[in-house]
Amino acid sequence: MPDKFPLAVIGTVAIDEVETPFGKREKAFGGSASYFSYAASFFSPVSVVAVVGKDFPAEFLNILKERPIDLSHLEKSDGKTFFWRGRYRYDMNAAETLETQLNVLTEFNPKLRFSSPPEFVFLANIDPTLQEKVLNQAAKPRTRFVACDTMNYWIENKRPELLKVLARVDGIVINENEARELAGEPSLIRAAQKIHGWGPSKVIIKKGEHGVILFDEGKFFILPAYPLESVFDPTGAGDTFAGALMGYLAKTGDFGFENLKKAVAYGTIVASFTVEDFSLDRLQRLETREIEERLGIFRKICSF
Amino acid sequence: MPDKFPLAVIGTVAIDEVETPFGKREKAFGGSASYFSYAASFFSPVSVVAVVGKDFPAEFLNILKERPIDLSHLEKSDGKTFFWRGRYRYDMNAAETLETQLNVLTEFNPKLRFSSPPEFVFLANIDPTLQEKVLNQAAKPRTRFVACDTMNYWIENKRPELLKVLARVDGIVINENEARELAGEPSLIRAAQKIHGWGPSKVIIKKGEHGVILFDEGKFFILPAYPLESVFDPTGAGDTFAGALMGYLAKTGDFGFENLKKAVAYGTIVASFTVEDFSLDRLQRLETREIEERLGIFRKICSF
Repeated sequence: MPDKFPLAVIGTVAIDEVETPFGKREKAFGGSASYFSYAASFFSPVSVVAVVGKDFPAEFLNILKERPIDLSHLEKSDGKTFFWRGRYRYDMNAAETLETQLNVLTEFNPKLRFSSPPEFVFLANIDPTLQEKVLNQAAKPRTRFVACDTMNYWIENKRPELLKVLARVDGIVINENEARELAGEPSLIRAAQKIHGWGPSKVIIKKGEHGVILFDEGKFFILPAYPLESVFDPTGAGDTFAGALMGYLAKTGDFGFENLKKAVAYGTIVASFTVEDFSLDRLQRLETREIEERLGIFRKICSF
Repeated sequence: MPDKFPLAVIGTVAIDEVETPFGKREKAFGGSASYFSYAASFFSPVSVVAVVGKDFPAEFLNILKERPIDLSHLEKSDGKTFFWRGRYRYDMNAAETLETQLNVLTEFNPKLRFSSPPEFVFLANIDPTLQEKVLNQAAKPRTRFVACDTMNYWIENKRPELLKVLARVDGIVINENEARELAGEPSLIRAAQKIHGWGPSKVIIKKGEHGVILFDEGKFFILPAYPLESVFDPTGAGDTFAGALMGYLAKTGDFGFENLKKAVAYGTIVASFTVEDFSLDRLQRLETREIEERLGIFRKICSF
């Protein structure tokens, strides 16, 4: 394990209960920071800033520990771990949230104690107030590139706080419907331009099975999703995408447009594995060779 | 005007009434064969097999006559022209049909009298019984490549007739929801494989603003839509796509996989112009130079 981490993520490490048309898992390892860090670890060491409760299973932590993932910023609090219960029906693009228990997340007060601060930081989908706390501690110029995610709940209930975060990040990775809602614009292209106007120079809009759009100060790039015969469980696809993307940026140290396109392609490919099984199961069996193979196939599928 | 037409389309030449969030047009030139032939004419001469009523405006016909479009198979019948009234709301991907009057289409009995039969034939979205009549007259080997379109109405009400057509065509160009319904398969990849099993070696699935998927006997190709800031009127986008695609195939005489990919890209680009204005208005102002320019931009947007 290196003592320097080029990449850090703040987000959730969670216990999920997931039901899809293909099955149900009652105690699944989940959370944005879990998917993110596991995906990123194929490209770069990564540090997780998060909190779990006393009930958090050791075997879940061991899954992360087997990778170049630093857990020295993973707090263990009294109380229960963040819990999410959701269901997918016919349309695997839309999760139906049945229950959310914030639990230990309510009192979470992240403190960054890196001897050498990460150059790349990802603020996964959590309360913008927490995202701002991390931003305050990850001051530029030491941090070279900060990106964030968010969701409809924060857009509707903490808009001023979210806009303050947006003004300070370099990139945002966001779902298409959230982009539309945030910008108040049905057109994704105009939504991206509007969000760009609020701060982030790179706006990355995830469209699930329909792929992704990247805007980078006037230039843009569109990529379909990797075609799969069947999607087993979409949970974590977006966080996996962001993790592989940021991991690739951290590995290469380059967030220019051409390299960003490659990062988006890697994000797409690693996410296409995540959805093939419950939880992080497919990622745990994933080899770097498979990522490169699928990327090669994908290139052929998309080029004309 | 050449006396030999490498490409023919059977479909509708119609009068539309269209309402979008941006405006309304009460007497718009429409119909699948109109959009198809106009789009194809940028690449190849094309012959229209269709019927209109006595009420059909001469100025609409003049729009086609200005292009290398042969109207010698456009019948003029007693009665009124096929009429479609539709509306688009917030979601420009889904047209709401308010009224359909078949009118002269009810008695239409297409007769092909080509001295030199077209090598490429497109059976646009009409009654599969009519599609079959054309197939019976456009016998192979003289016709090298036949493709068809269809819609939910025929899938639900004339399935046996439709399956007979499918067994005899080389390609199908179909919307994603119709592909799902036809195959009884939520996964587009599996739907395409199933449809391929019923006949067509090339299955092309249109996903509107999300692009297109091409399946060609095990190989596949995915292309996003050309990104537009705003879509003014989506009517005719699918027929334009098919027209430019078939026009490019007829021009090059090559329906191998690599050339088919290019044809799909041209279809995407020409359709992106159609939706920028009502009816065929934008196509009428379109220049070949603009098609090539936008294709160049599109290539950059999609490559990584």
